[in-house]
Amino acid sequence: LDLTGFAANFAAWQAAQMTGYVVLGSTGEVVHLDEREKCQILTAARQVIPANAAFMVGTGLPSTAATIEFTNLAADYGATHALVVTPHYFKSAMSTSVLINYYQQVADAARIPILLYNVPQFTGITLSIDAIARLSQHPNIVGIKDSSGDLRALQLTIANVAPDFAVFTGSAPILAASVAAQATGAILAVANFVPQLCQQIYLLAQANDPASNPLQQQLLLLSEQIASVSGVGGVKYAMELTGLIGGQVRSPLTMPDKAAQEKIAQLLLRYNLC
Amino acid sequence: LDLTGFAANFAAWQAAQMTGYVVLGSTGEVVHLDEREKCQILTAARQVIPANAAFMVGTGLPSTAATIEFTNLAADYGATHALVVTPHYFKSAMSTSVLINYYQQVADAARIPILLYNVPQFTGITLSIDAIARLSQHPNIVGIKDSSGDLRALQLTIANVAPDFAVFTGSAPILAASVAAQATGAILAVANFVPQLCQQIYLLAQANDPASNPLQQQLLLLSEQIASVSGVGGVKYAMELTGLIGGQVRSPLTMPDKAAQEKIAQLLLRYNLC
Amino acid sequence: LDLTGFAANFAAWQAAQMTGYVVLGSTGEVVHLDEREKCQILTAARQVIPANAAFMVGTGLPSTAATIEFTNLAADYGATHALVVTPHYFKSAMSTSVLINYYQQVADAARIPILLYNVPQFTGITLSIDAIARLSQHPNIVGIKDSSGDLRALQLTIANVAPDFAVFTGSAPILAASVAAQATGAILAVANFVPQLCQQIYLLAQANDPASNPLQQQLLLLSEQIASVSGVGGVKYAMELTGLIGGQVRSPLTMPDKAAQEKIAQLLLRYNLC
Amino acid sequence: LDLTGFAANFAAWQAAQMTGYVVLGSTGEVVHLDEREKCQILTAARQVIPANAAFMVGTGLPSTAATIEFTNLAADYGATHALVVTPHYFKSAMSTSVLINYYQQVADAARIPILLYNVPQFTGITLSIDAIARLSQHPNIVGIKDSSGDLRALQLTIANVAPDFAVFTGSAPILAASVAAQATGAILAVANFVPQLCQQIYLLAQANDPASNPLQQQLLLLSEQIASVSGVGGVKYAMELTGLIGGQVRSPLTMPDKAAQEKIAQLLLRYNLC
Repeated sequence: LDLTGFAANFAAWQAAQMTGYVVLGSTGEVVHLDEREKCQILTAARQVIPANAAFMVGTGLPSTAATIEFTNLAADYGATHALVVTPHYFKSAMSTSVLINYYQQVADAARIPILLYNVPQFTGITLSIDAIARLSQHPNIVGIKDSSGDLRALQLTIANVAPDFAVFTGSAPILAASVAAQATGAILAVANFVPQLCQQIYLLAQANDPASNPLQQQLLLLSEQIASVSGVGGVKYAMELTGLIGGQVRSPLTMPDKAAQEKIAQLLLRYNLC
Repeated sequence: LDLTGFAANFAAWQAAQMTGYVVLGSTGEVVHLDEREKCQILTAARQVIPANAAFMVGTGLPSTAATIEFTNLAADYGATHALVVTPHYFKSAMSTSVLINYYQQVADAARIPILLYNVPQFTGITLSIDAIARLSQHPNIVGIKDSSGDLRALQLTIANVAPDFAVFTGSAPILAASVAAQATGAILAVANFVPQLCQQIYLLAQANDPASNPLQQQLLLLSEQIASVSGVGGVKYAMELTGLIGGQVRSPLTMPDKAAQEKIAQLLLRYNLC
Repeated sequence: LDLTGFAANFAAWQAAQMTGYVVLGSTGEVVHLDEREKCQILTAARQVIPANAAFMVGTGLPSTAATIEFTNLAADYGATHALVVTPHYFKSAMSTSVLINYYQQVADAARIPILLYNVPQFTGITLSIDAIARLSQHPNIVGIKDSSGDLRALQLTIANVAPDFAVFTGSAPILAASVAAQATGAILAVANFVPQLCQQIYLLAQANDPASNPLQQQLLLLSEQIASVSGVGGVKYAMELTGLIGGQVRSPLTMPDKAAQEKIAQLLLRYNLC
Repeated sequence: LDLTGFAANFAAWQAAQMTGYVVLGSTGEVVHLDEREKCQILTAARQVIPANAAFMVGTGLPSTAATIEFTNLAADYGATHALVVTPHYFKSAMSTSVLINYYQQVADAARIPILLYNVPQFTGITLSIDAIARLSQHPNIVGIKDSSGDLRALQLTIANVAPDFAVFTGSAPILAASVAAQATGAILAVANFVPQLCQQIYLLAQANDPASNPLQQQLLLLSEQIASVSGVGGVKYAMELTGLIGGQVRSPLTMPDKAAQEKIAQLLLRYNLC
């Protein structure tokens, strides 16, 4: 762990007026960390995340009990919200009722509010609109991060959840469209290296300003070339090129090869981002 | 065939300022028609479609030769464009190069310009962005109808095709977002029964007017309840309720059952559409 | 159409003691033929198929009415059975009840017995065990060709259908296992060029003779290299190499390229098949 | 943890002549256990597993380093083999080369031989035949458990791996067929409650004795009704009914409901298994 580098990055993110942070998320390689490391990161995060920003922690684990325990541990470390990925190993058992039950148990026992996290590209399962709508009624379930990239599902979610339930997209290619469709905001891997660009698109789209269009197209191409083609390693490499500390991924993940590195560098240069 | 009813519907569609029509498309149950019936419909269509409107015909067939032949037959009947679905029976053989080759051969031999038609929910295959980009360079391939509903893919298409290549969405849930992302327009099953609503959303979204949002949400719910849940039968039933002639689907398709009919009627009433 | 070559092939197939033939099947490129061509092939087939062999015809079309009409036309041409592929264009509408209804209507109206044809790799849909079990009770539905290659599903089919309902596998890689599991027989694309090998495996597997094992492994590798990698074009090319008349596929299908041709030739040589 | 019950079950399993055991596998809910619990189970297992039986441990974790560390910890506890599931959270990054690299690093560093574990229904990814063939050459990778249920893939695996590389099926519906196709053996969830039946089928299939057929059909129906419909909870419930200690699953998994319990009981009764 490079906790110094981790802390150093927040200056740039704060300058871009991020209103919250997810720590121990997918791009943070939470699945590659052991419990001691997770606690070290939480400690470091609490020190640098401003008191008025959301401090969300990825706390979902395969069992209900483990998820509750780690959620409350994160609360002890000062987390303000838990982002809880759908359990997914036993895919065929993860019916809508089983998932509803899981989230209700977690939310009942958690000492901080939780957000649902739907990310089919990693979990292989999709949280149904029905489940989301039902769970949005729970007083301690306050939102969702939907990384499916499915704008139709996002709009159906927004149309069906309780008022004040926060709906965040986790998909950069649909950022402007999500904001136009009244999403609360976005939680994006690419915001690690282009926080300002994400923030601009968000504000322009909220104002129905068509100036968001060319910026959204920039973001789309950055997201494809960096996050889709090269994954977490691409995000970390792009962080290094944009003046942040990205570091290395852990095996079995790999960093972009020479050819991919060059394409990433060219794209960032093209948009004056490095 | 109810050719009288078919012709009668155009009054309402013209009133909604549709700029073009697809005849023999998926919702027109082209796969359920024999060649004689197709020709009868083309004859009827040519009589009612205004000379200044696009008269697109679904002409894609499994073999290249049959597609070319029927495309030129449609041209003889006065069609202005052919909408050519991806061949798809031998799915694993439909590589990007095979599909490019197919469309190039069709476009070379066709006497009218052609549009690509990507509709994975019916074909089980997806036309790649690479294939679309390559094919957009062909002088006789002038556009695409993308019914995937994938806004990311639509934006990548727009970013990669030749200038002047027309990109239509075929997905009602992403109509406003597609227009905001600079799509040329839309070709929608739901436009059969709510042409005015589709037209309004299109114009508002083009003007970056946030008044498109509540209308887009109406369209989303209509599309889900009618076209997604009940399919072609739902569209035909909704046409009947909105004063048009929908008629019956052909077996094995079915009309909505009592419960679905009531939900459709309630939804149309709720939005003062019947 | 090369009707002379078509007829000439039957000598080899008869020598291998085939007990029946499917004409106008997937490998016969039925989707690439127009109605006049289909009738020419049926005429030619009736002349060469022995009276005591099954003369099955692929008659499934997207609409129920068209399927019934063509099934009875095939009967007029002397077909003994119709092999009816699942309708599949409107995939999400093809529920178990819709498919049951379709097959019941076809079977009620058909003047020859019908067999179900489940081939998800081409249709994108799967006929459920429940549907098969229900349909096996119909007096005019006498069997199924299951090309899914899923041995678990094949065994569940056998366990759940009416007695005397014929269950054919359409998957060469599971031929011996299917016969061991009491399948009635097999209908295989590779039998076009290795009819003898298929027949041997069938007989040995029926006799629980482990000599089927090395032959099944040959068939597996032939099927992978020829039918999986190169599709219908691979089968036609292998027919040419084994002394039959395969001819060319129709566009958009393609024949194997040079490299693939060499691999096919080497494999056939290795097993002394050409 | 019910370590007493766990140990008690081995009497029945030994009576059925099991030649090896997997501890901390999918059905053992390894994903629901913390590290302390895993160690307790390993300790208990070492005490009851005979010295001449294989003592395999599920040691796969998302990161390469964690997998190596836990594999060698299992070795310290007396495990004879590690069964290493494919890493799978970052699905799109898990290319053939990344997976080969992962397994090579694990095998190089492991102090006990490892087996690959391919289980797409839980992981959402499939280990390619190419990867398996390559990895089978590694001196410390001695076999694979393939739970895909795909007999074609199993046969291709057998045809392509190094001699002496062990190929186990993890799919009860294809047990007899796998043995007939020269698989080394099987590692089955249902063997928890019908070890004798599994052993019988294995021996009969090895002897090409058709008496395996009715038994295989029994196993198929038991596997469908219990393991497929009710998952891990079904297996545990069936263990209780057959005189073993199954206990409860951990949330979010659930035990079978009343209706499912009755069906399980009826099926076991029908085959005189309880």
